[in-house]
Amino acid sequence: MSDITSLVSRLATLGFADSPVEHAPVDTVEQWAEALSSTAGLPAKFTLTKTLIFKPKQPKSEPMAPVVVIAKHDSPTNSKSIGNELKLKDLRFASDDVLRDVFQTAKGSVSPFALAQVSQESIAHVRVVVDKALLSESSAAPIAFHPLDSSRTVFISVATLQAFLKSVDGLVHLTEMDFVADAAAGTKVEKKTTAAAATTEPKDEGGAAGMTKPGIEVSKDVDFPTWYKQVLTRSDMLEYYNVSGCYIVRPLAYFVWQQIQEFVDAGIRAMGVKNCYFPMFVSKEVLDREKDHIEGFAPEVAWVTRAGSTELAEPLAIRPTSETVMYPYFAKWIRSHRDLPLKINQWCSVVRWEFKNPQPFLRTREFLWQEGHCAHMTKNEAMVEVRDILTLYRRVYEELLAVPVIEGEKSEKEKFAGGVATTTVEGFIPTTGRGIQGGTSHYLGQNFSKMFEIMVEDPEATGSVRPKHLVHQTSWGLSTRTIGVMVMIHGDDKGLVMPPRVSDTQVVIVPCGLTVKHSDEDRRVVVDACLNVEARLRAIGVRAESDLRQNVTPGDKYNHWELRGVPVRLEVGPKDLEQSSVLSVRRDTHAKAPLSLSGLESSVQLLLATIQSDMLIKARKTLDERVKIVLSWDTFVPTLDDKCLVLIPWCERIECEEQIKVRSSRAAQGDEPEDEKAPSMGAKSLCLPYKQPTNPPLVEGETKCVQCGENAKRYALFGRSY
Amino acid sequence: MSDITSLVSRLATLGFADSPVEHAPVDTVEQWAEALSSTAGLPAKFTLTKTLIFKPKQPKSEPMAPVVVIAKHDSPTNSKSIGNELKLKDLRFASDDVLRDVFQTAKGSVSPFALAQVSQESIAHVRVVVDKALLSESSAAPIAFHPLDSSRTVFISVATLQAFLKSVDGLVHLTEMDFVADAAAGTKVEKKTTAAAATTEPKDEGGAAGMTKPGIEVSKDVDFPTWYKQVLTRSDMLEYYNVSGCYIVRPLAYFVWQQIQEFVDAGIRAMGVKNCYFPMFVSKEVLDREKDHIEGFAPEVAWVTRAGSTELAEPLAIRPTSETVMYPYFAKWIRSHRDLPLKINQWCSVVRWEFKNPQPFLRTREFLWQEGHCAHMTKNEAMVEVRDILTLYRRVYEELLAVPVIEGEKSEKEKFAGGVATTTVEGFIPTTGRGIQGGTSHYLGQNFSKMFEIMVEDPEATGSVRPKHLVHQTSWGLSTRTIGVMVMIHGDDKGLVMPPRVSDTQVVIVPCGLTVKHSDEDRRVVVDACLNVEARLRAIGVRAESDLRQNVTPGDKYNHWELRGVPVRLEVGPKDLEQSSVLSVRRDTHAKAPLSLSGLESSVQLLLATIQSDMLIKARKTLDERVKIVLSWDTFVPTLDDKCLVLIPWCERIECEEQIKVRSSRAAQGDEPEDEKAPSMGAKSLCLPYKQPTNPPLVEGETKCVQCGENAKRYALFGRSY
Repeated sequence: MSDITSLVSRLATLGFADSPVEHAPVDTVEQWAEALSSTAGLPAKFTLTKTLIFKPKQPKSEPMAPVVVIAKHDSPTNSKSIGNELKLKDLRFASDDVLRDVFQTAKGSVSPFALAQVSQESIAHVRVVVDKALLSESSAAPIAFHPLDSSRTVFISVATLQAFLKSVDGLVHLTEMDFVADAAAGTKVEKKTTAAAATTEPKDEGGAAGMTKPGIEVSKDVDFPTWYKQVLTRSDMLEYYNVSGCYIVRPLAYFVWQQIQEFVDAGIRAMGVKNCYFPMFVSKEVLDREKDHIEGFAPEVAWVTRAGSTELAEPLAIRPTSETVMYPYFAKWIRSHRDLPLKINQWCSVVRWEFKNPQPFLRTREFLWQEGHCAHMTKNEAMVEVRDILTLYRRVYEELLAVPVIEGEKSEKEKFAGGVATTTVEGFIPTTGRGIQGGTSHYLGQNFSKMFEIMVEDPEATGSVRPKHLVHQTSWGLSTRTIGVMVMIHGDDKGLVMPPRVSDTQVVIVPCGLTVKHSDEDRRVVVDACLNVEARLRAIGVRAESDLRQNVTPGDKYNHWELRGVPVRLEVGPKDLEQSSVLSVRRDTHAKAPLSLSGLESSVQLLLATIQSDMLIKARKTLDERVKIVLSWDTFVPTLDDKCLVLIPWCERIECEEQIKVRSSRAAQGDEPEDEKAPSMGAKSLCLPYKQPTNPPLVEGETKCVQCGENAKRYALFGRSY
Repeated sequence: MSDITSLVSRLATLGFADSPVEHAPVDTVEQWAEALSSTAGLPAKFTLTKTLIFKPKQPKSEPMAPVVVIAKHDSPTNSKSIGNELKLKDLRFASDDVLRDVFQTAKGSVSPFALAQVSQESIAHVRVVVDKALLSESSAAPIAFHPLDSSRTVFISVATLQAFLKSVDGLVHLTEMDFVADAAAGTKVEKKTTAAAATTEPKDEGGAAGMTKPGIEVSKDVDFPTWYKQVLTRSDMLEYYNVSGCYIVRPLAYFVWQQIQEFVDAGIRAMGVKNCYFPMFVSKEVLDREKDHIEGFAPEVAWVTRAGSTELAEPLAIRPTSETVMYPYFAKWIRSHRDLPLKINQWCSVVRWEFKNPQPFLRTREFLWQEGHCAHMTKNEAMVEVRDILTLYRRVYEELLAVPVIEGEKSEKEKFAGGVATTTVEGFIPTTGRGIQGGTSHYLGQNFSKMFEIMVEDPEATGSVRPKHLVHQTSWGLSTRTIGVMVMIHGDDKGLVMPPRVSDTQVVIVPCGLTVKHSDEDRRVVVDACLNVEARLRAIGVRAESDLRQNVTPGDKYNHWELRGVPVRLEVGPKDLEQSSVLSVRRDTHAKAPLSLSGLESSVQLLLATIQSDMLIKARKTLDERVKIVLSWDTFVPTLDDKCLVLIPWCERIECEEQIKVRSSRAAQGDEPEDEKAPSMGAKSLCLPYKQPTNPPLVEGETKCVQCGENAKRYALFGRSY
């Protein structure tokens, strides 16, 4: 009795005293790590854990002898080995009943603290297995546990854990195990399944061992938000950062961005645009110059108020976009019509402190983009440029990312704050049925040139004092959002599917078919063949890589590279070489085909080109199927609920757009709660497509607006959106 | 009497009432504009002015009749035309005596307010000429004047100025003139000298008309700081920004940066480094992790404390560099020795809020750079990389920018805060005799990996629980400072001198030799020839451009492109074409040589290559002449005063370095006051060069330190520096 009390009290001093940090409830270690990544006030470094409860097969007569395993989150806790260690038969995960009745806890919330809740009768029969890795951690990193509840985390020093275990020892039967060494030993026996160590564990472990699993644990169609996070983080494209709303763009993703940069830079250079760099800081006075414009951004502006320990006389804004940063200097640089057109662009990051739910690449507080700003003599010149840029953006999506987009004009309500007209390329995410703005090119008219007095003497005019002429301006931007759209559209349950043109690795070469029967010589022949293929492909500019890792099975290599979306895998084995060929496997279709070693260069290039175009064709087919012409309001919301976008004859009135949002959202209550930016997901106009439907044709003065019945002006694309 | 009093009082209400803004005293409009550019609380836009006082040739008998000209800063106030307008002979700038005795003012401080100080006897004889451009300004932009003192500025509305003039009218003889139209008329007569309109003005105008002059007004050797500013701003490389310490990198300069980016990216990719992007924000907790490191940066860190109208729970730092941003993730990503080496780089801007005198490119509060961060298993691997990167940096300076640098190691005092060793490439600015750090590559040792627990299991070790091994890290960076160094070293009194490899325009083609005698047909032939040459050169990748502007004389085109440093000018005239050749003019040497049209491609390519290497050779010769071996303290400071760097046998002790700084600065009191970063310019160690002098050789245990007499370890490079 006193024992259990002392245990409880000691537990108290450990867990509940240590005021745990609060976070969203989590089911998997993955989610746990993510939840903590956006939680403040954590230790610099800590070790995540899993606490597993097993039950051996035993006669009903005997008192239940559950096994509590306290392990490092990524230790391969193989139930069979544990059983062997404890001489217990057929160890299985304990049922929910056992968790509830014996430990008064539930899956996901299991922790050592559950021991405190075991009745005195039962406690004596409980066996505790603790992971050596937790105790031997030379690092002083504290250890993280859920105190009985997966929405809270406490951090306990190794010393404290040991103290706790000491106290438990004697009360319960305590064992230490070295799971890593154990698994290693295991692999010697069954080489083919090293990484399988984890997967042999019962699935109902709640994914606690997730971090050791290379792959994606949820289906894209079942849990899209989790799928998206897992694809990005596990493919090493992106890392969550300890400042909420900010993310680390890792090399795999940054490579895509650099491909886009090269493509866009070449395109705009041909248009006479020159790159430059303006400071990231804007004085309040300048930022406020253009009222409509600033109203659009003010709530999201980040302010620098201190440098070192010195308060700044005037706080400085970090640019959310650079119109007001640049245009005072346009006024200075543009003295005469001969200074026109002025065309500049900058690659930089901008900061928009959104308080809405951030999403990697799609909505982040700092993001990378390109912003072009031009001044022209005439509206016509400006408009031509606006469309040329939009075409360039469409080509980035279609030719590089294999993503189809719809070109059009934004409605009055959706256009850029302070501009006259906004043109846009709109993408579509089939899994959620939502549209997404892909890039915008604005005609600013003379609105900013009036505010900033960017004017020249009218060359047409005569007389000594010529009338001033306000310039016509444009601005246009494309951001790293492109990467998120690409991932969402092409990815599958195995991970990323990369379009060849933007994939850092286009071809991975994997030696395989080598068994214990093969000699070192056989192995060397295969490895040499791999390196030879790699060299030949690199020689023609294909980004090829051989994966010659010794300690990893071919199967694990396949998973590794499929997760990263590498377009083509070439398998090279003794049998293939006998046929003087290699086996190619497409990431997008999984189609396999042997490729003869002779002429391999051209066949691989052809294959990459085919994959690139097939990906676009497939995505466009889906888009075409999911954009529906809707001619009556009754079918409007049902079509959206079908995860489609709708094309409707529309009156183009702001009031009507607002009504559409309301009427479509009420119907959609509670949908997609993960995205607060689209509260209950009312539909909004995505664009007025340049390519207008012809069947049925829209007849001016006859065709009515689907929502309000007024005369329709154009077909408009409406949808739920990001 | 009452009149003059009312004038004075009205002046009071204009000028002194309007609480003028304070700034550094200025002598030229250029300096004025710059001073205001870093002054807070100015009107959004304003017109700078010049107030000039002339005196006609007149009999001593007559009362002096000075002429006060109030004009837009850039109006071509041609004294001859003013004389004609007023029927006054030989108008000349009034002597200092006149300014003092009649107007109680002095050059640089002259303003309309001086009229208030003219005695009643004299005021009646004063003539005032006002620039129509000031009155007709359609814009409501206020007009800037110095209220009797060039360190203050008041802003007056056009209306107020008119009111003022009304009040003056009657008291003085008032005339309005349209200087622009006047100059335009003038040019029709003497076409060849359009831009000369300005230069015909007396030089002692104090550069007030500076902004209309295309060229550089001061000699590089006479007033280096002003020369540097003028070269940067007038060549359109850089623009001053309204946030002090921040500058706009304009296309001409950004192009150089992009060339450097391409070169460095290719180099590091070959080393296996991958590009990525980390957020610009750092939490305080993370920033503070490494003490020595943060001490080095804390005083200069900019803090974001507010987003929109919301105070942030925790202020966020803007990265001054990314060690502490990245390394927590290194700890996460590096799980095993197989994850090593980890090599990443990012191109970004960083913010260091220096309170010292900022200098474009050399010391700015935000600057662009590249920062590489790598983790290795062994010290040796890390050191090899550190040197490979340093070599890459040297090649950027030598091969791209034609700037010679000295490679070496930083002293204990000068090394990177938190690192173990810093290697550096040091440049030299001959005009000031000062050294400048060109780029650094650090070996961080295990200092950061210890702080951030970046460790792997030692693969050498055996046993089930392997000891942890801390990784060896490096970090290295190159910034836009490179551009400033290039400009300072190569520029001359005509402006920039660009190394061909980084010049946006490599060859400019100018049609010339066309006079009124020539027919339109003749003109067309020449123009076609220019375009043909341009096309041929572009076809082989030479960045060539034809300047076919009609309204600009060849002479002005020469100035325009020389100011921008274009390496080669090709003059194409009827006579050249008769010889089927063009005339080439080198920007660096001004050497002229005809180039045959046949084989022009190769001869131009050869010429560009020659210029590139000649520029480096020339700069290196200067550097070699100005690095002196000094063997006794007596000659140490005199050699520095000779604008040289010194190589001394040195003990390498911090105390000794500090003594050297003190002893060399006392001697240099008041030198180079424009740079507060080097207070009274004491010398510091620039590096311990890898290439050690051999004559005289340094004998361990024998050779003594030049300053303290202790045993010298190595020759060290000391100098005054930026």
